[in-house]
Amino acid sequence: MVSEFQLIRRFFTRATPGAVLGVGDDAALLQVRSGMELAVSTDMLVSGTHFFPDTNPFSLGYKTLAVNLSDMAAMAAQPRWASLALSLPEVDENWLEKFSAGLFTLADEYQVDLIGGDTTRGPLALCVTIMGEVPHGMALHRSGARVGDDIWVSGVLGDAALALAQIQGHVQLAAKDFAACSLALHRPIPRVTLGLALRCVAHSAIDISDGLLADLGHILESSNVGAEISFAALPVSSALQFYIRRPLGKHCLLAGGDDYELCFTAPVAHRPAVEEIATSLGLRLTRIGIITEKRFCIVRAADGSIINIGKSGYDHFC
Amino acid sequence: MVSEFQLIRRFFTRATPGAVLGVGDDAALLQVRSGMELAVSTDMLVSGTHFFPDTNPFSLGYKTLAVNLSDMAAMAAQPRWASLALSLPEVDENWLEKFSAGLFTLADEYQVDLIGGDTTRGPLALCVTIMGEVPHGMALHRSGARVGDDIWVSGVLGDAALALAQIQGHVQLAAKDFAACSLALHRPIPRVTLGLALRCVAHSAIDISDGLLADLGHILESSNVGAEISFAALPVSSALQFYIRRPLGKHCLLAGGDDYELCFTAPVAHRPAVEEIATSLGLRLTRIGIITEKRFCIVRAADGSIINIGKSGYDHFC
Repeated sequence: MVSEFQLIRRFFTRATPGAVLGVGDDAALLQVRSGMELAVSTDMLVSGTHFFPDTNPFSLGYKTLAVNLSDMAAMAAQPRWASLALSLPEVDENWLEKFSAGLFTLADEYQVDLIGGDTTRGPLALCVTIMGEVPHGMALHRSGARVGDDIWVSGVLGDAALALAQIQGHVQLAAKDFAACSLALHRPIPRVTLGLALRCVAHSAIDISDGLLADLGHILESSNVGAEISFAALPVSSALQFYIRRPLGKHCLLAGGDDYELCFTAPVAHRPAVEEIATSLGLRLTRIGIITEKRFCIVRAADGSIINIGKSGYDHFC
Repeated sequence: MVSEFQLIRRFFTRATPGAVLGVGDDAALLQVRSGMELAVSTDMLVSGTHFFPDTNPFSLGYKTLAVNLSDMAAMAAQPRWASLALSLPEVDENWLEKFSAGLFTLADEYQVDLIGGDTTRGPLALCVTIMGEVPHGMALHRSGARVGDDIWVSGVLGDAALALAQIQGHVQLAAKDFAACSLALHRPIPRVTLGLALRCVAHSAIDISDGLLADLGHILESSNVGAEISFAALPVSSALQFYIRRPLGKHCLLAGGDDYELCFTAPVAHRPAVEEIATSLGLRLTRIGIITEKRFCIVRAADGSIINIGKSGYDHFC
């Protein structure tokens, strides 16, 4: 039987050029560069709650890190280091090899060192703590939105939720649409380079993990402001466009989680700067509304009527 | 029904005077002081593997942080910040209140800020990432042991394992002995002040979570050395002394985990310094053997014979 230490060594120990000391002691040692603040975020993913037990392990390894990188993106931090705690019901070397490959694919792409963690026996669950650097005072907070700011989102919204709707049997997509939406669900692209580009440009930012309205809601609450969103302006894929007049389509777009796009606010004067970022990154950035004084969020249809948004996001205990 | 956000706010959001930004954004922001390295360690505790489902939640909250503080102690780092990810099968406010009280009792004692985390639905599991500071180059590594070093341990060993043996029905202790051993099991004292005092005094250190021989084994392997331990020198409580000639007693002492004492090595010339630390901290520090050139560990009885140590520690997948 392979031991815990052999497991760690084989699948999770790589060179850590960005660390003073990596895996294998009581703690890792890191040197945060002078003038930098350390951004730290933790996410736990549990089988049956966040993913299906039979999820492709490569995708799971990829996504586990992706959701954490997304938090760094939302803070405008450069991701540097991550730790991984893994609870496993059994040692399945094939599963671990693929999970590790998925995780390191993304870690290598963003030059993130896996500097430690823990492996234990238990129900399948993953906990990643990610750490990044951001120059002192330059992080993007949820609390920075100001009245009159444009509200922007990256990419398209709702595709991950649409893929999930098909998996749950609520909809039947064309094969190529399901493939595209599945990619959004299983291989979200963390908007790290966008986050870095938004330093000095945006006033506030958040990543969309629980749905546009829920996550924008966090910005509004933290900033003590409201918002008016133009439904027609929301960026959707052609797959979701087909469902956009139905409750399911609206739900995916406004309340669907798991997209990991960024929602950010920026002053009107910075529109050219935002558009330049969109061009230079080859990434769709869409102006979807404005920040208002009123302490609530309304979504307005093209005809000027207000869309009833009901339950606006996902909460694990509601 | 209480929401995830209300839960976090009520039970896990306290002032974070040591952080630039605490709970409530996509990431926390920390300022590591100039000249300091950041020590980072992650531990996951799973119900049924690391603790019984009916464990007193105050003790569990306490111990969850204690085992992480112990890792900081073993690196000679000053603990500063922690994040907590919590997977819960249901919202039990009474349980959460007690768990939180246990956690913050220790956090307050060591001035550790809880700077973020995650709450989710799933099997009961806890993941803490702890971060501390240590002056550049002054951390204690596992790899620093040198031939001729004294081997020391703090406190007494094996009491936590003895309490567990009673819980599992293998032994019947007197009530006051069980109470004392239970304290070792449920309320281990992280040796943080000892770790800090050992900077410049010790060559290497580790905390004893998996049993003396297993954890000392990590020092030996990392340092490419061996060890000779004097069984008679090992510090035991009066409760364990009663069982010391039986296999169970030997097992608790040599291979029992969960004590969270420190095992460290220091040059012979530093004996007076170590003894002075013991006096100033009011903490028993015992010299239990020496580091040798031979790449294995032997335990010698008082009559000079070698004790067969068999399985030397605990591995979650063996």
